[in-house]
Amino acid sequence: MATSRSVTARRLISLSVQHTRCYSAPTDGAIPPNKAKYVPTEGTYPKGFVVGSAHAQVKPSNTRFDDLALIASEKPCSAALVTTQNHFQAAPVSISKKIMFQHQSKSIRGVVINSGCANAVTGKGGREDAIRMAKLTHDLLNKRNPSEHDKTAEAEAKEKIREGAVKIAEDDQDVSSIRTLVMSTGVIGQRLPIDRIEAKIPTLVESLGNTHDHWLRSARAICTTDTFPKLLSRQFTLPSYPGITFSIAGMTKGAGMIHPNMATLLGVICTDAPIQKTALRVLLSTATNSSFNRITVDGDTSTNDSVALFANGMAAPESEPVRLNHLNPKELPTKGNSLIGQRLERQSEDYKEMNKVLTSFMEDLAKLIVRDGEGATKFVTVKVTKADNDTAAHTVANSIATSALVKTALYGKDANWGRILCAIGYAPGNTCVRPQQTSVSFIPADGSEELKLLVNGEPQAVDEARAAAILEMEDLEILVTLSNKEKDVGAATVYTCDFSHEYVTINGDYRT
Amino acid sequence: MATSRSVTARRLISLSVQHTRCYSAPTDGAIPPNKAKYVPTEGTYPKGFVVGSAHAQVKPSNTRFDDLALIASEKPCSAALVTTQNHFQAAPVSISKKIMFQHQSKSIRGVVINSGCANAVTGKGGREDAIRMAKLTHDLLNKRNPSEHDKTAEAEAKEKIREGAVKIAEDDQDVSSIRTLVMSTGVIGQRLPIDRIEAKIPTLVESLGNTHDHWLRSARAICTTDTFPKLLSRQFTLPSYPGITFSIAGMTKGAGMIHPNMATLLGVICTDAPIQKTALRVLLSTATNSSFNRITVDGDTSTNDSVALFANGMAAPESEPVRLNHLNPKELPTKGNSLIGQRLERQSEDYKEMNKVLTSFMEDLAKLIVRDGEGATKFVTVKVTKADNDTAAHTVANSIATSALVKTALYGKDANWGRILCAIGYAPGNTCVRPQQTSVSFIPADGSEELKLLVNGEPQAVDEARAAAILEMEDLEILVTLSNKEKDVGAATVYTCDFSHEYVTINGDYRT
Repeated sequence: MATSRSVTARRLISLSVQHTRCYSAPTDGAIPPNKAKYVPTEGTYPKGFVVGSAHAQVKPSNTRFDDLALIASEKPCSAALVTTQNHFQAAPVSISKKIMFQHQSKSIRGVVINSGCANAVTGKGGREDAIRMAKLTHDLLNKRNPSEHDKTAEAEAKEKIREGAVKIAEDDQDVSSIRTLVMSTGVIGQRLPIDRIEAKIPTLVESLGNTHDHWLRSARAICTTDTFPKLLSRQFTLPSYPGITFSIAGMTKGAGMIHPNMATLLGVICTDAPIQKTALRVLLSTATNSSFNRITVDGDTSTNDSVALFANGMAAPESEPVRLNHLNPKELPTKGNSLIGQRLERQSEDYKEMNKVLTSFMEDLAKLIVRDGEGATKFVTVKVTKADNDTAAHTVANSIATSALVKTALYGKDANWGRILCAIGYAPGNTCVRPQQTSVSFIPADGSEELKLLVNGEPQAVDEARAAAILEMEDLEILVTLSNKEKDVGAATVYTCDFSHEYVTINGDYRT
Repeated sequence: MATSRSVTARRLISLSVQHTRCYSAPTDGAIPPNKAKYVPTEGTYPKGFVVGSAHAQVKPSNTRFDDLALIASEKPCSAALVTTQNHFQAAPVSISKKIMFQHQSKSIRGVVINSGCANAVTGKGGREDAIRMAKLTHDLLNKRNPSEHDKTAEAEAKEKIREGAVKIAEDDQDVSSIRTLVMSTGVIGQRLPIDRIEAKIPTLVESLGNTHDHWLRSARAICTTDTFPKLLSRQFTLPSYPGITFSIAGMTKGAGMIHPNMATLLGVICTDAPIQKTALRVLLSTATNSSFNRITVDGDTSTNDSVALFANGMAAPESEPVRLNHLNPKELPTKGNSLIGQRLERQSEDYKEMNKVLTSFMEDLAKLIVRDGEGATKFVTVKVTKADNDTAAHTVANSIATSALVKTALYGKDANWGRILCAIGYAPGNTCVRPQQTSVSFIPADGSEELKLLVNGEPQAVDEARAAAILEMEDLEILVTLSNKEKDVGAATVYTCDFSHEYVTINGDYRT
């Protein structure tokens, strides 16, 4: 004790110094050659969105790389946000949710993001930091792009709170003057260097632009242990808007602590299509369930998971997105066909198409996270079919996709299907697994014939050389069929990676 | 496809060859120096139990080490068995359960065990192998120690089945002629080399004895990736038996695929105390819940988990264990106080004492498995207190104990308590976690003062040097307090180990 006390006296180091993460992005910023193919060299970006980045040295050890990012709409837009189900929600998560709530998901300007520190489990001080970061960014954005809405949005929010239409608990923060969201990612339990961040926010706002390079640098700035920036963009059309080409673009980050439940790490998606806020929320929630909620790296659900979707409508005739943000859906003209959200209940053709576009886009974005899983050498699709229902299928797929034994066997290129069966068998809850009806196959990535491992509970003679050849490929699909009856239709797909020495190195030798 | 077909033609290797495990026990059989302290050099073993081992070369690569074990009572005894909840129960699990059922847990002779092959997911053939193994052993045991009971036990079982008192499904096996249980452990999906095993069963039965060396060799024979045999023995007394010293001894095995649910891998416990079968079942189930069900190595629940408890009563006056096995509890004299099980409902002093002895014994046995966790360098106790109830506490403790990020940080000796908080926060179900009331500390293994990391949701300034010193020790306790209210009393303790490069090596480079 004498020793430990003298050590204490000598070196009382605060947590903010203690948890420096040194694996946050490759030290020289180079993208590994085998990952370069996932980084776009050009893109088509949505009208009216500008993005930027700056270097605030959030982590003292990061002396070179941008760690602040800003994604903003030039006009206030409608927004949707899904966040982690972890009980310990980080300060930026709770503040962003408050902003969304107090402004009822409308007139949002964008999101400011830092990497290098999660601002999670940081108490009251952490929430104040998140508010300062969002507030300064918002004020500068308003100054840069003044809008008619800015003048009324704050007053309107305050009025609703006063009227009681929007209820805020007595001990809760009033964020009615902030319409810019905030996200953080990095080490948990560390306070933000908020002064350094605030000092760089003016530079961040000045850096805004809409070229491919702007988007790529912004996507890079939100990375932590990621080895490459994750950015996608594409164009689409909608039935009711002949002649108009819409764009959607998004970025995400994440490599470890990946097992989302309703959202994952950080994701920001922007579109210039006109989408009413209620529709936006349902669209984001639906697409999240088949994308970010279907990936896993290590089974750990983060405290900071957040995905935001912004729609500013600026590709459609100019007046529409404005109306979208300010009219109550009930007040919308029933014959109008320019507003996707308006006919949500009736599942308009526009809504259906938008749902298809967004889901496919978000699936591709989510897969990039698995491609970059910490230490991963493989991209594995686990498909479970013919379950009693989709939930049972998802549970079984998750059980396989998170099994340390399955994942280490895949890393070792070992066709050890017994471990897959074992993981199917211990999946929790009412999965209705029937061993005598269960079949398992490897689906090779080169399109060649499936390799049957188990058929109706009976092991197959397996050609080991072929199994080895299949496992040499980077991609693999594990197909599980839980029933031999036609009536069972439950299905689910989960994306995972393998579990390597490098994962242990990254997460064990964390500060060396 | 041409290539893969020609490869197929050239080398169609059956699964039985494919899944050879090379990490099953150190190649030279030496016990690592840091584990030697867990291997007893002497013991006190229960009367009337004999154990033995033999080498059947279950795995072709194992040319030296015993891989068959037999634990038997010289007189038929009462037995209890808990087994895995995995849907894919191995053949020996389902056969042993049938034997227990058809003989109503009485007149059991013992258990025959093989390592090197789990006989799991092996279909109908696998079940036939398990029956052959149990039957031959049982017949030879009966020949070695003929008992009055043997003459009637089989007839009685057949009579009960005929009467319908014991119901067997039409397509199910009749195992009424077998009263020896069977267990297997090793690779899943591979058939047993049953001919080689049968050829060695006579040697196995001949090897039976009751010295410390017999017990140690038997404990060694059931190991797979274990680095040391896990054997414990101790003595105890019971209030109603003045002057009698009872003994309990047990062995277990396991290092990977450890996350038991109602039982774990293999365990066999024998006592010469007289315990009626119903009491035995309740005792085993209770003790399992606070021992084998509280450990985890990698979160994977095996297909073969089985723990058996045998009580032959041979330390007590000779006639009693016999009566125990043959009388229906209802027919027992109500004033008799020599039978522990008889006053189960009234929680007799004997029962309470036996419960205490068995629970403590099984906890120590279970901890040995965590000590030998694949690749483990640390033994970590996760204690959760002041939860709403015990179940919530157990769920939270499990979430921490299975988190890959917590376990790799422990391996790296990194006091990354943020990951512990994260794992508390994503624990599934209704855990009633209240971030503002949660506290986390490290309890050092050297008995020095606790190191507070989080108090009522507020991070503490942590002395990093002291944290590092605490993490240098092999043992660590993580103490989580979920509430600051006096009324909350739910608690649970789970034992886990760290997650190292060696774990990945053992399970990834599985066949090299």
